[in-house]
Amino acid sequence: MEFEDAEPGTMRPGGRTARVRAAVLRAAGDAMAEGGFAHLDLADIARRAEVGKTTVYRRWGTVTSLVADLLLDMAEQSVPRSETGSLLGDLKANARLVQRTLTDPRQGALFKAMIAAAACDARTAEALHRFYDIRVREWAPCVQQAVDRGELPEGTDAHEVIRAVSAPLYYHLLTTGDRLDEAAADQAAEAAAAAARAGAYLRDA
Amino acid sequence: MEFEDAEPGTMRPGGRTARVRAAVLRAAGDAMAEGGFAHLDLADIARRAEVGKTTVYRRWGTVTSLVADLLLDMAEQSVPRSETGSLLGDLKANARLVQRTLTDPRQGALFKAMIAAAACDARTAEALHRFYDIRVREWAPCVQQAVDRGELPEGTDAHEVIRAVSAPLYYHLLTTGDRLDEAAADQAAEAAAAAARAGAYLRDA
Repeated sequence: MEFEDAEPGTMRPGGRTARVRAAVLRAAGDAMAEGGFAHLDLADIARRAEVGKTTVYRRWGTVTSLVADLLLDMAEQSVPRSETGSLLGDLKANARLVQRTLTDPRQGALFKAMIAAAACDARTAEALHRFYDIRVREWAPCVQQAVDRGELPEGTDAHEVIRAVSAPLYYHLLTTGDRLDEAAADQAAEAAAAAARAGAYLRDA
Repeated sequence: MEFEDAEPGTMRPGGRTARVRAAVLRAAGDAMAEGGFAHLDLADIARRAEVGKTTVYRRWGTVTSLVADLLLDMAEQSVPRSETGSLLGDLKANARLVQRTLTDPRQGALFKAMIAAAACDARTAEALHRFYDIRVREWAPCVQQAVDRGELPEGTDAHEVIRAVSAPLYYHLLTTGDRLDEAAADQAAEAAAAAARAGAYLRDA
């Protein structure tokens, strides 16, 4: 189906625009997961998405802009945080979500490609930093709730605790050939919770 | 100076071979730090190293082999571990070393480029995994010594503790735009030590 050929008036403009964006971002993610950032090509992405090439060029202009929009969409579409009632429960839910994402064939390849692209391109790095900032903000309240419940010391930096859960999972992915399993996720959550309880993430520390 | 043109018999063969390798690896590291893996070219590296092109092609054959040899050399040349007499002292020394490496303009760019290359190329990924494996093995004894001194529980996975020190530093480098400072290094060491004391890195956990 060619979105360009949709009969005028058959869809609300917002609906059509949103569907074109979804199709193009899906195609961009597929292409990036398969071949990395270096081989991305707007014409190829338009073809994969079955969207007119001019629509893609007019709307995104460059591969870098398209990848930045993909990262924004990934942040918007990401799973909301869990609330289990305990710090360890919440951090384990976060760690398992990260572990499932990084071990998913498409998502894992996509994140590796994003990190590689960000290492070479400043604008992609900015977009990737925004993605992680949005994700950290989504999960930080579970740490503040643990402070409020008295599970963690006052003055704990909630963002640092959330980053501490993801850090070993990404580090394993990038620096070892080991498969990331649920035990690694649980260990990451337990280590972050233990360090937080010991005051390692106090804002003044 | 052209190493190829060195007068026969003026250097020991081992000495000359080692000097050619050092010059070529230095040039490869410079080129990779400047332009990333994608733009590496054996002829350009030979020119930068002032070494004959045929020597480089004969000895390394491909860019991937040269990068693997560079990673091996980086592991061999890396600073040996410190022994401060306490777990926290040793882990802080390790964290500060990683932080200094990642914030050094040349080394930081080189590590980012290596991670990007490993995300796209399986052989480079293997070589990078070996590099981290060597570095983890170099520092692991300081954790075992802490177990022997009674600072950490029996059965603590020394490799996991060492990886836990580096993980947040790499994660910050790749996912935030923040500068990695000594406070971040100390926090990484303190968090790893606290989690290890709490038993988060027990091998059966």
